[in-house]
Amino acid sequence: MSYDNNNIFAKILRDEAPCITVYEDDKTLAFMDIMPQMPGHTLVIPKEAAMTVHELSDEASLACMKTVQKVGKAVEQAMGVTGFTLFQLNGAEVGQTVPHFHFHILPGSILNATGIKGHAVEMGDQQELTTIADKIKRFLA
Amino acid sequence: MSYDNNNIFAKILRDEAPCITVYEDDKTLAFMDIMPQMPGHTLVIPKEAAMTVHELSDEASLACMKTVQKVGKAVEQAMGVTGFTLFQLNGAEVGQTVPHFHFHILPGSILNATGIKGHAVEMGDQQELTTIADKIKRFLA
Repeated sequence: MSYDNNNIFAKILRDEAPCITVYEDDKTLAFMDIMPQMPGHTLVIPKEAAMTVHELSDEASLACMKTVQKVGKAVEQAMGVTGFTLFQLNGAEVGQTVPHFHFHILPGSILNATGIKGHAVEMGDQQELTTIADKIKRFLA
Repeated sequence: MSYDNNNIFAKILRDEAPCITVYEDDKTLAFMDIMPQMPGHTLVIPKEAAMTVHELSDEASLACMKTVQKVGKAVEQAMGVTGFTLFQLNGAEVGQTVPHFHFHILPGSILNATGIKGHAVEMGDQQELTTIADKIKRFLA
């Protein structure tokens, strides 16, 4: 399967679709998951075209991890928690919904069935997402 | 909180505790999770002392990602699946049980409540773990 240039994250990277950004550098973008599994659910993506971890270049791997460190800490601070879950799905068979590599940052536990919503199930409230993004950005500033 | 030199993964790295290894290089080690959430559940750890992603050096970040790519593909092949879940817990509050950075590779979905066991709950069968590790190693060879 080859990379689909029309997936929603590719469109976001080309400014053809909107997102609520919290961080951007030359290799990565971080923004709010529009269907959050809990408040503060944030995504980190590389700017290069990679569907899964298997296609990710070394440069993008490291860049994504550095952005996860930065944004993960800010998400913790913004949400008033210590710790976060990092997860990443490779392939539709395990539940990957957008075929562009993305790390999920969850300011809570993915292991706890209570307090966590389904993956890519329910749209979040735009105003709430923006308010949380603004908080995260303050801790990144 | 400072790094605990007596955590079980530190002991494994010093050869003071056993593990069922599938891959090792100068910066990382990959081995079977002794309490697998599903068959093929594999861990990737850096050799440096880091509790969470926040303490991880750039060198270890990249090395872990490269090992995840290698071992993840071999786990897929050994288990006869396409795709895997990558997850990583930062802090006891989100369920991290061993205070040494570790990526979990699950050859299936973490989002599916059926077919997945609790985290760090039930000991796996040693013989089954060894058989699976041997399969994974064949695909890494």
